[in-house]
Amino acid sequence: MELKNNLYTETGWEIFEREYEDEQMVTTGSNYLIGNGYLGYRGTFADWTANEYVACIVTDTYDMADGKWRELCNAPNGLYTRLEVDGERVTINKGEISNYRRGLNLREGLYSEEFTWKGNKGNKVHIETARFASYHNLHLIPFRYSFTVEKEAEITLVTGIDGVVWSLNGEHFKKYDLKKIDKYLAIETVTGERGIQLDVVEGYRLDGATPRFEKIIKEDRKILRELKFKLSPGTRVVLEKVISIYSSNDIKNPLDQAQKDLEKALQSTFTELREKNRANWINFWNRTDIKIKGDLKGQTALRFNLYHNRIATPAHSDRLPIGARGLSCQAYQGAAFWDQEIFNMPMFLYTSPETACNILKYRYHTLDGARKKARKLGYRGAFYAWVSGKTGEELCPSYFFKDVISGRKIHNHFNDWQIHISPDIAYAIWHYFQVTGDWNFIVNYGAEMIFEISRFLYSHAYFKKDKNRFEFIRLLGPDEYHENVDNNAFTNYQAKYTLERALDIYNKMKDENKKELEYLMEKIELTEKEIEDWKEMAELIYLPQPDEETLLIEQFDGYFDLEDTRPDELEKRLLDPGEYWGWPNGVAVETQVTKQADVIQLFCLHNIFSKGVMKANYDYYEPRTQHGSSLSPSAYSIIASQIGYVEEAYSYFIKSCTIDLYNTNKAVSGGTFIGGIHTAACGAAWQMVVFGFAGLKIDNDNLSFNPVLPSKWDEINFPLQYKNNRFNVVITKSQLKVKSSEENKETQKIRYKDDLTEIRPGDEVIIPF
Amino acid sequence: MELKNNLYTETGWEIFEREYEDEQMVTTGSNYLIGNGYLGYRGTFADWTANEYVACIVTDTYDMADGKWRELCNAPNGLYTRLEVDGERVTINKGEISNYRRGLNLREGLYSEEFTWKGNKGNKVHIETARFASYHNLHLIPFRYSFTVEKEAEITLVTGIDGVVWSLNGEHFKKYDLKKIDKYLAIETVTGERGIQLDVVEGYRLDGATPRFEKIIKEDRKILRELKFKLSPGTRVVLEKVISIYSSNDIKNPLDQAQKDLEKALQSTFTELREKNRANWINFWNRTDIKIKGDLKGQTALRFNLYHNRIATPAHSDRLPIGARGLSCQAYQGAAFWDQEIFNMPMFLYTSPETACNILKYRYHTLDGARKKARKLGYRGAFYAWVSGKTGEELCPSYFFKDVISGRKIHNHFNDWQIHISPDIAYAIWHYFQVTGDWNFIVNYGAEMIFEISRFLYSHAYFKKDKNRFEFIRLLGPDEYHENVDNNAFTNYQAKYTLERALDIYNKMKDENKKELEYLMEKIELTEKEIEDWKEMAELIYLPQPDEETLLIEQFDGYFDLEDTRPDELEKRLLDPGEYWGWPNGVAVETQVTKQADVIQLFCLHNIFSKGVMKANYDYYEPRTQHGSSLSPSAYSIIASQIGYVEEAYSYFIKSCTIDLYNTNKAVSGGTFIGGIHTAACGAAWQMVVFGFAGLKIDNDNLSFNPVLPSKWDEINFPLQYKNNRFNVVITKSQLKVKSSEENKETQKIRYKDDLTEIRPGDEVIIPF
Repeated sequence: MELKNNLYTETGWEIFEREYEDEQMVTTGSNYLIGNGYLGYRGTFADWTANEYVACIVTDTYDMADGKWRELCNAPNGLYTRLEVDGERVTINKGEISNYRRGLNLREGLYSEEFTWKGNKGNKVHIETARFASYHNLHLIPFRYSFTVEKEAEITLVTGIDGVVWSLNGEHFKKYDLKKIDKYLAIETVTGERGIQLDVVEGYRLDGATPRFEKIIKEDRKILRELKFKLSPGTRVVLEKVISIYSSNDIKNPLDQAQKDLEKALQSTFTELREKNRANWINFWNRTDIKIKGDLKGQTALRFNLYHNRIATPAHSDRLPIGARGLSCQAYQGAAFWDQEIFNMPMFLYTSPETACNILKYRYHTLDGARKKARKLGYRGAFYAWVSGKTGEELCPSYFFKDVISGRKIHNHFNDWQIHISPDIAYAIWHYFQVTGDWNFIVNYGAEMIFEISRFLYSHAYFKKDKNRFEFIRLLGPDEYHENVDNNAFTNYQAKYTLERALDIYNKMKDENKKELEYLMEKIELTEKEIEDWKEMAELIYLPQPDEETLLIEQFDGYFDLEDTRPDELEKRLLDPGEYWGWPNGVAVETQVTKQADVIQLFCLHNIFSKGVMKANYDYYEPRTQHGSSLSPSAYSIIASQIGYVEEAYSYFIKSCTIDLYNTNKAVSGGTFIGGIHTAACGAAWQMVVFGFAGLKIDNDNLSFNPVLPSKWDEINFPLQYKNNRFNVVITKSQLKVKSSEENKETQKIRYKDDLTEIRPGDEVIIPF
Repeated sequence: MELKNNLYTETGWEIFEREYEDEQMVTTGSNYLIGNGYLGYRGTFADWTANEYVACIVTDTYDMADGKWRELCNAPNGLYTRLEVDGERVTINKGEISNYRRGLNLREGLYSEEFTWKGNKGNKVHIETARFASYHNLHLIPFRYSFTVEKEAEITLVTGIDGVVWSLNGEHFKKYDLKKIDKYLAIETVTGERGIQLDVVEGYRLDGATPRFEKIIKEDRKILRELKFKLSPGTRVVLEKVISIYSSNDIKNPLDQAQKDLEKALQSTFTELREKNRANWINFWNRTDIKIKGDLKGQTALRFNLYHNRIATPAHSDRLPIGARGLSCQAYQGAAFWDQEIFNMPMFLYTSPETACNILKYRYHTLDGARKKARKLGYRGAFYAWVSGKTGEELCPSYFFKDVISGRKIHNHFNDWQIHISPDIAYAIWHYFQVTGDWNFIVNYGAEMIFEISRFLYSHAYFKKDKNRFEFIRLLGPDEYHENVDNNAFTNYQAKYTLERALDIYNKMKDENKKELEYLMEKIELTEKEIEDWKEMAELIYLPQPDEETLLIEQFDGYFDLEDTRPDELEKRLLDPGEYWGWPNGVAVETQVTKQADVIQLFCLHNIFSKGVMKANYDYYEPRTQHGSSLSPSAYSIIASQIGYVEEAYSYFIKSCTIDLYNTNKAVSGGTFIGGIHTAACGAAWQMVVFGFAGLKIDNDNLSFNPVLPSKWDEINFPLQYKNNRFNVVITKSQLKVKSSEENKETQKIRYKDDLTEIRPGDEVIIPF
């Protein structure tokens, strides 16, 4: 079926296109990305170059080339392959193209192309390619390139490594070593700032032809082989390549290791490697997939998002962030934002909790960066980086956008005023504990983080003696258009929650982990006085309350006094379509137009507001929200589900799931490239179904459901893991069915509305509505 | 002597020009202003109109015509007089001009013109005019217009009232009644917003000619008389006019009263009226003048400023503000800023304390406006208006400048963040008490103001529990380019000083005025708990201290982290010369370039910093100060005197005294007209001599001097009033001479360095250096 113009699916497990569209180059490059959390390789043709945004982004290669942006490097392109038939270049942009199909198999992470090319001389060439990023060995990309000709022809096949790479913010590699080692080609690069060595090694196998010779061509930053042979009609030539990538951050001798891995990989055929990889993916989908009956479009869009949430996540490591654009490009610096904990993590938490654990350990390992940031800004404790790379030091520059009218840079305060990042992490840590019951994690990691975050919050807060309350001053809340605001409701509630959890942890550890507590308090020089301070602050922190009449919660102090207008009205005020809408003088600043869910985002995290309050606020904020952030539609979808706006929830679900698929968000804002995969929305896709439509909540150790299905959905079906027990949940219009896996050890209570039902291992419970 | 190109003085008591310069029209209109605190009449030619910025600004006529700016009205021009000789218009812009002299006699507040005009037909006309704003009756402007012709000619003299007025922000008068009452002409106007009735009545006497007839011409908003007669050579025709102006805010029947006053005035000749007025001025100068020997230029510039400080001040009333541009135009809304207390008032305090008292009573009468503003912004007590008119409600709009690049309005926070206005008023109240000893004023007025200001400060302040101190957050200090700053040193010191004075007053009243204190506390519902709170806050308020090594005081938190550059460097970054430099995205915002004295201004008010500290900070801040405010050079002059930079003090003295005289400040910024007389600088002129060069300080009831004279000055000589005793001070390079008036009642101690000298009534003390 056609998802949109020239985007199709057949089974809900793949997306593909039937026509090549040049102007979709940026988008399809991201959408058809393959990856494995270690690297991401964009969906581009084999003979393309930096001009067409070819990129292979490698994790843990943070480097700064322009004195401003520290970002991941784009590795030399080891898959580069070019075909000439009778001296004519076979390429998608020239010649007559037919039988075109290009797409991504989501079920096994396989990118493929197929097309027939007809040249000026009348010969026809049929090409098929496929590639995947291996989960079996994260350093490998196997690639198959095969072709036939209609008439006999002289073939020149050029394949090797193209080291001329696309880079957003400057040239990272100060050194390029072009090497031929044994039968392999390699480029060894060294980055300018950090001296990271990054090696790409390439090897191949050729079937169906015997080249007259292999000529090695070394050009500027390229090392290639030229293979020449005559090809008869009907003979299929198959080039099977594998590239292997290592950096000096992975291993001491990256070149050796890359070569070894490559040698080993080349002992298997492409098909054998693919089978191994497929098994890995099947395992992932078994634990993660959500099946939707009755909506192939929604199903496909959803899986597309779950797929990208997976490949963006460096699940192999507990020291690496999930990039806001994953590994789809260098934008947003391959770095973690609050997106990681609030948007990406929950899917893993309920399906692969070990990955959620790694995500949170990353925050533990970057505590020093957060401490450093806090100190630098005059605070104590842990103020996590708004843009967090390897070390957790702040990567977010003060000057991010530019004023497109004057050409001057804009000083934004994402880095120093958007403090909710810290309590957001605390929130996620506790969420992890609630879902996994992993108290050891709290003792060994979580306590230290939450204590340091609490300490930070205390040092940031101001006490108003005349009002007998703690306040937070000069904030940026989730809505980034309004900087310099006080008592952002989202931030204040998150802060209180954090302090309460710190006290919970302190009290529980005092009872159960006295020694560890003493050790920790000594380690971070935490005093009893501070615990008392947190207690006082938790009690006296100002929480904006729903107004008694309107039920509205003010997004921040004075928000309701701002001009009350709408996003489309503001659009008309733009002097230039590329203008940044926010601080300090964008069109939204003095108005109630918000970039994204803010009070509504608060509802997503805190299940303490009545349906009436949520509804009143939804009705108020929804028309004032621009959804200028990819984080926004999902929050509206989840809350719309919870207040009974089911069709609106569905339409926000589709909006959120198709941000990348339908290319709805702009790739450039205020002069800055912000394209690539919006991984937060990918993670949120899972939440919209499970927290939104299924209405899952953890409620005193009960799994509580409050399902609503959009009219076109007949059924949703998904697995869940809760405290080492696995469940399968099926929801139709008339019933909720939960099955407890036979391997489970514990009985679990399921809540639907006011009814609690126990479900024993191996049992299935059906609750009719 | 020539002061600058085409600006002269002969005696130091006048300024005049010898050539008419069209492009100086705006400046000379302000500089040659006559006035008396009730009205100001610009230095323009009699036949000029709104196009040439003719204005007669009348106090207490606040009205808003454009929905944004409440400002004083410009009254119909009752002095309008036009001469035609043989049908040819005699005017400064046409014809051949000789014998030109126009200027202002500062000694008696007399504006005069004289010139010979030669027309196309060859006749020569010699015109002399003079006018003054009466101090004897503030509602009157007497005017004399005389002329002779060289050859016989047919004369048409048109004189009357021109109601077509220049208005900065919209048409204020919704009604114009053109009247002939008895032999007088009148225009009665009524303002659109407030319905204020404003009447101008005009009468005349003509000598030297007998018109054939007097024709009354009523045109749109004009009522004029046309007088026609033949004139022989050598015969001097003298038109003596008087205009009388009243508004319904002055009196119930303004038209009647204006007519009565006019009738009475016309019983005297111009010369008789002038004599009375001169006597009033002589009295003023006797109490106020500072004589400088050795520097006629400095002398003249100084008197020019004292003159303007006087005529700007509505000394007749205790309910009217001193406008930041006095009554020289409508700019800055004829409203008081902190300028009034910190810049204008001290001269009166030490020379005419009854006027200082009226200035402060104005703040008492506007307390409700200040209370209202505080409440509106969520505070308690009295937050005085940044721009304060009649009622003390905030007149400063949120949108003041515009971004000349984008054309968008700029949201500045002069009104809601520049809180130092309130403690500045408290400071002035206490200063008044220190100098006059007028404790009754404190009991009846000052206490209530200072208590309400303290209450405001307490409600504004934040307590940092982790630092055990009170802080002020989100301020604008004196340096207006940096908005949204924390702990501006100037503001914090002023706040502490205010709280301490509140406690002093409370304690003294408790001892001496128990009943009044009880009454007051009941009236403003002040509790003992609040007094305790102020005590705590006074002790724990954060005061930025001089750094131990550098001795520098940071202007506000984080100032030293800003880009360290210089004003001339920033000038190069302007994309348009008319750009506003400040918040939110002007060129200075992210730099250490300050608009004006800030830490240095703190030193002017608080005599608690060592010379070393003052010197270090002067050296640091001076090159970083743009002096983009007319308030700035005087502060630098005063502190330069105090730290021994005498010649630099002199050069800042000249800079400050000639802001208007030499027309050095721009009349338009960010698209807003801000021309007119800079009255704060006028008031500061006195301070630069007395506080700066003479080094006067009140030090435990002693008059303390620390004189330094610029090399070119031989002597300064000035009167002083301190606690009902009058003194005369003469300072030369070698001695200080103080004479106590024979009418004094008390012995006074004089301090020079460590020596205290007693001086009895009638005695003179000479202290050699």
